[in-house]
Amino acid sequence: MLTPSLDDVLAAHERIRPHIHLTPVLTSRIIDEAAGARLFFKCENLQKAGAFKARGASNAVFSLTEAQAAKGVATHSSGNHGTCLSYAASRRGIPCTVVMPRTAPQAKKDAVRGYGGRVVECEPSTSSREAVFAEIVAQTGAEFVHPYNDPRVIAGQATCARELIEQVDDLDAVIAPIGGGGMVSGTCLTLAGLAPHIAVYAAEPEQADDAPVTVADGLKVPLEDLTWHFVRNHVADILTVSEAEIVAAMQLIWKRLKIVMEPSSAVALAAVLRNRPVFAGKRVGVIITGGNVDLDKLPWH
Amino acid sequence: MLTPSLDDVLAAHERIRPHIHLTPVLTSRIIDEAAGARLFFKCENLQKAGAFKARGASNAVFSLTEAQAAKGVATHSSGNHGTCLSYAASRRGIPCTVVMPRTAPQAKKDAVRGYGGRVVECEPSTSSREAVFAEIVAQTGAEFVHPYNDPRVIAGQATCARELIEQVDDLDAVIAPIGGGGMVSGTCLTLAGLAPHIAVYAAEPEQADDAPVTVADGLKVPLEDLTWHFVRNHVADILTVSEAEIVAAMQLIWKRLKIVMEPSSAVALAAVLRNRPVFAGKRVGVIITGGNVDLDKLPWH
Repeated sequence: MLTPSLDDVLAAHERIRPHIHLTPVLTSRIIDEAAGARLFFKCENLQKAGAFKARGASNAVFSLTEAQAAKGVATHSSGNHGTCLSYAASRRGIPCTVVMPRTAPQAKKDAVRGYGGRVVECEPSTSSREAVFAEIVAQTGAEFVHPYNDPRVIAGQATCARELIEQVDDLDAVIAPIGGGGMVSGTCLTLAGLAPHIAVYAAEPEQADDAPVTVADGLKVPLEDLTWHFVRNHVADILTVSEAEIVAAMQLIWKRLKIVMEPSSAVALAAVLRNRPVFAGKRVGVIITGGNVDLDKLPWH
Repeated sequence: MLTPSLDDVLAAHERIRPHIHLTPVLTSRIIDEAAGARLFFKCENLQKAGAFKARGASNAVFSLTEAQAAKGVATHSSGNHGTCLSYAASRRGIPCTVVMPRTAPQAKKDAVRGYGGRVVECEPSTSSREAVFAEIVAQTGAEFVHPYNDPRVIAGQATCARELIEQVDDLDAVIAPIGGGGMVSGTCLTLAGLAPHIAVYAAEPEQADDAPVTVADGLKVPLEDLTWHFVRNHVADILTVSEAEIVAAMQLIWKRLKIVMEPSSAVALAAVLRNRPVFAGKRVGVIITGGNVDLDKLPWH
């Protein structure tokens, strides 16, 4: 297992800076009063391609040698990673193939194609996905960029926490939603190196482990060895929240911060509101991970 | 008529800085491609109290002498100005009374009260509003802060354009929605003084003049002498857009910029998209004026 280092993060930041937004940090007095803490929302929903995953995807794509790049990149993802990899590939002008189930939402397929990527459909099963993906790689020689279990991807996601600590002084904690763990791992990597006194919390839906449905469907993926390494060593706690708490936090953010973000992104605020004693009086960075939501299917309609 | 000067704008900016956000400027490659221009969205929907009117209201409130301030402020507004005046008054710790029709949306009344202001209801007619308002002023001695026909308010709104030209180099034009004309007047005031080569455009719904209903209901107010002065002397053109164009521009902004904003705020982008030859190849500041929208009544549902 090749674990990325702080130097990898700093190199990633220089590498991807022309291809990402330095996203703003927003605050709300009213949300602070609800939480009993000072919250600083790092708005990766305002990131290129609408999600923090543009960071990791860009770092992977721009790390390739010319020879590798010529063969393109490939991944399997029906979520933001596929869109963001397609975005990053378009910035370098190289091919990108994304394998996704034929049952994935049309909007997700359109998003990949919107940046010039190719969508190859598989059946909605792990075995079909793996078979189709292997065939694509065999045909093209494309470089596989895993959504999170990839040191280049984690080093890229880690640039978000670096920006955050440059934008906000004296943070006590940072909390992010956890799915596969790419953002949480990157946050651990940066803070362990640059600000080890800042505690890292992860938040997830109660439903993520044991039930088929959560509004925060972006978080329904398992940790892998690399992300588990960071979570095990650096995360202070993993906090869980209910579906109703996720929707309430999402509404609060839309109403007070005036931003469009995904249900998955609301999980972190929901965890802060549910665990007031943990964060009472503290200065807390809250990572809003993405903004790609279907405006015709909001969870309060 | 007391016309505010550039010095008033600079003084206003120092005065209100502790009470407002320096709002971010967002961009989208996809919207730029649709417009055939480089657009820089100044996000006053992310301003305190959710609208640019926090600037003018704060400048008026913090311009008062101690003796004036002790008697409080008052206005008539069923829109953002009432909410923002209540916000500014709360920052100074003085009373605020807002007269609004009893038929105004409950959310608007709640917003004023949420910042500690008092709502006094009138009948939904001009004569009732004026009578009730005169009574309030007679009782309290409160200072009237008009929503836009007030030099302190215009000098406050003018700080938005000053920030914008500090955030974005080499703009060719700035466009803002026009209702009473406070934002457009302030933009003219700043740019005439600091960057007279930047053209100012105003945008309004076709419906605003002659029909009772527009989704951009925040713009259904007439210009007054002070704002007409700036519009007549400095605005390059007033561009109109249809209701369908407003809703389409609003969806584009929500989807691509990932921000929650009012239909009124979408009027400026709608005008840019309708008048591509006017803005072709130019660098254009687009002012997103506010974000206080009812999330349960979006115009595409």
